[in-house]
Amino acid sequence: MIRERHLFGPGPSNPYPEATRALAEPLLGHLDPEFLRIMDETCEMLRTVWGTTNTRTLPLSATGSAGMEAAFVNTVHPGDVVVVAVNGLFGQRMTDVAARCGAEVVAVEHEWGQPVDVDRVLAAHDSPAIIAAVHAETSTGVRSDIAALGAGKGDALLLTDAVTSIAGIELRADDWGVDIGYAGTQKCLGVAPGLAPFTINDRAFERRVEKPRSWYLDLGMLGGYVGEAGVTGGQRTYHHTAPTAMVASLHAGLTRVLDEGLDAVWARHQAAGDALQAGLEDLGLELFAAEGSRLPELTTVKVPDGVDSAAVRKELLESYDIEIGAGAEAYAATVWRIGLMGRNARPDAVLLVLAALKDVLGRA
Amino acid sequence: MIRERHLFGPGPSNPYPEATRALAEPLLGHLDPEFLRIMDETCEMLRTVWGTTNTRTLPLSATGSAGMEAAFVNTVHPGDVVVVAVNGLFGQRMTDVAARCGAEVVAVEHEWGQPVDVDRVLAAHDSPAIIAAVHAETSTGVRSDIAALGAGKGDALLLTDAVTSIAGIELRADDWGVDIGYAGTQKCLGVAPGLAPFTINDRAFERRVEKPRSWYLDLGMLGGYVGEAGVTGGQRTYHHTAPTAMVASLHAGLTRVLDEGLDAVWARHQAAGDALQAGLEDLGLELFAAEGSRLPELTTVKVPDGVDSAAVRKELLESYDIEIGAGAEAYAATVWRIGLMGRNARPDAVLLVLAALKDVLGRA
Repeated sequence: MIRERHLFGPGPSNPYPEATRALAEPLLGHLDPEFLRIMDETCEMLRTVWGTTNTRTLPLSATGSAGMEAAFVNTVHPGDVVVVAVNGLFGQRMTDVAARCGAEVVAVEHEWGQPVDVDRVLAAHDSPAIIAAVHAETSTGVRSDIAALGAGKGDALLLTDAVTSIAGIELRADDWGVDIGYAGTQKCLGVAPGLAPFTINDRAFERRVEKPRSWYLDLGMLGGYVGEAGVTGGQRTYHHTAPTAMVASLHAGLTRVLDEGLDAVWARHQAAGDALQAGLEDLGLELFAAEGSRLPELTTVKVPDGVDSAAVRKELLESYDIEIGAGAEAYAATVWRIGLMGRNARPDAVLLVLAALKDVLGRA
Repeated sequence: MIRERHLFGPGPSNPYPEATRALAEPLLGHLDPEFLRIMDETCEMLRTVWGTTNTRTLPLSATGSAGMEAAFVNTVHPGDVVVVAVNGLFGQRMTDVAARCGAEVVAVEHEWGQPVDVDRVLAAHDSPAIIAAVHAETSTGVRSDIAALGAGKGDALLLTDAVTSIAGIELRADDWGVDIGYAGTQKCLGVAPGLAPFTINDRAFERRVEKPRSWYLDLGMLGGYVGEAGVTGGQRTYHHTAPTAMVASLHAGLTRVLDEGLDAVWARHQAAGDALQAGLEDLGLELFAAEGSRLPELTTVKVPDGVDSAAVRKELLESYDIEIGAGAEAYAATVWRIGLMGRNARPDAVLLVLAALKDVLGRA
């Protein structure tokens, strides 16, 4: 029996139907002219959702976490100072990844649930090579001000995790001064997990590591893979076999998002998040993320005292096929994460998850 | 308009219909009990196609080339001597990847089209840490004797590329002494590209790099990702979001392969390859790979003098929606690569590609 789940956790979300249908279409070869057209158009649509004109914008052939690795492995020279804003699990992960690339990491720790303190991050070191921060912390449901980091970055490169923000909330890589960015497909983009939308501007590319420790994620080689950085008609060189089904699905998801329009998509996520957060408070629950920095697409809420967090999640899954997420790390038992992302940023999803939570909490 | 191609190149091949259907099923979350069951069963079926009992057998969340990187990045300590048998593009790539991991690489070069010379590889160094070789060279259509390397490896670890051999020809990792192996999904396994079936035994795992340069491919962390190395009921730890649609598709492809039976699948590939190779010779064409070492699933054939290789491939694609591959690197214009892999290892595919080639060559 096939289970049909409502994926209201921190990701993956239920894909847009267009993205699922594309997966079932006949497979194309990775050098087929038809596939190269799909890849070119995908890179072009990714530029739009990133808010960038970077020619080097492409879907890396692995999940969002590999996007993080690609960002650091291509730009960190041994001994480089990398300032990392840590206000959740993914900031923490950045410190590990950067260190493996040979960085001297300066971690700026924050209380979880709080946004990045821009002044403290910018003051953490005189002349860092890279400043890194997460735009939308999936572990805490918090949005941080990337534009302010960009405004104050000086000569440093600004590296940004947009896994949970892309195609969900305002994201303007160029306007905000983002030099290197990575994302995922399985959140607000409404596509299955498996690719990492990536962008890097000329400034960062010129400072890159000539021969990075990773062959698979070597951006110098990947330029040719998408035809001189995705420019239609550019020269193709074989690097690895593109995951053609997933790229076709991303193409379909992006088409769906851009047909609706980015402003409309952002507004839809905001409306769903606002309604969910108001409804949770009406149920007497307390939100976790700091007020004023709450992501609409991913809501964190405290587990009421005396309630077994895991039992509630299990009951939601078994009674209603609804998946919500546990909290991350230290908050595993005390916080829930409820995502209304991509296709699920809809009024009916808000109603359903609130009604189900009310029912299950009433039984607890 | 959706193009329906016959993917008779070096990969991807047309997936088994079961694998395509699985992609279109409702998406599961990566922590859903239903998905964990699928992942466990996938790891178990991968053990069967690898011919191994290694608990650490799993689908890595990226394409086959990332499997190569995972193999080296987890096992090469700085300064380790790595002997690489180079008899084609993928052996060559191994030298690059190993060097980036800090290896002192001893490359044993062969003429392309020839199998690995086991004696020469084993004599290349007194005490290498690793001996690496490609089982089925996708660039040349050649099979090499991995069992003989395993028999003579001594204390070295044997690292094997099985991208184009897995589920196509005999592969017995444990019997042959393979310590570390990686593969791809898009060839004989009959699944879209995007995952790298991987296996490592205890002997190699105990010698691994404690903190490898890659976070994404760190096998120490990935053990928890599949629940204590894929043992059902093992403790799961979050590492990255599994590409759930692709894993479900691999599960379906593996089920299809094992329902048919590995012996039957191998025999089907052999029959198709034999018929294709005989048919090509009947057309007056000359095979490229050394006799006695020809892969049935991937045939290399010389482009006749005076024939424009690219024009023939273009005509096959435009007239008959048939994709065949160019030769690799120096052989781009002088060799074709014809793959009959997975679903395409069938008598009708043999007939079709031979008839189409005959027609197009007749026009040239």
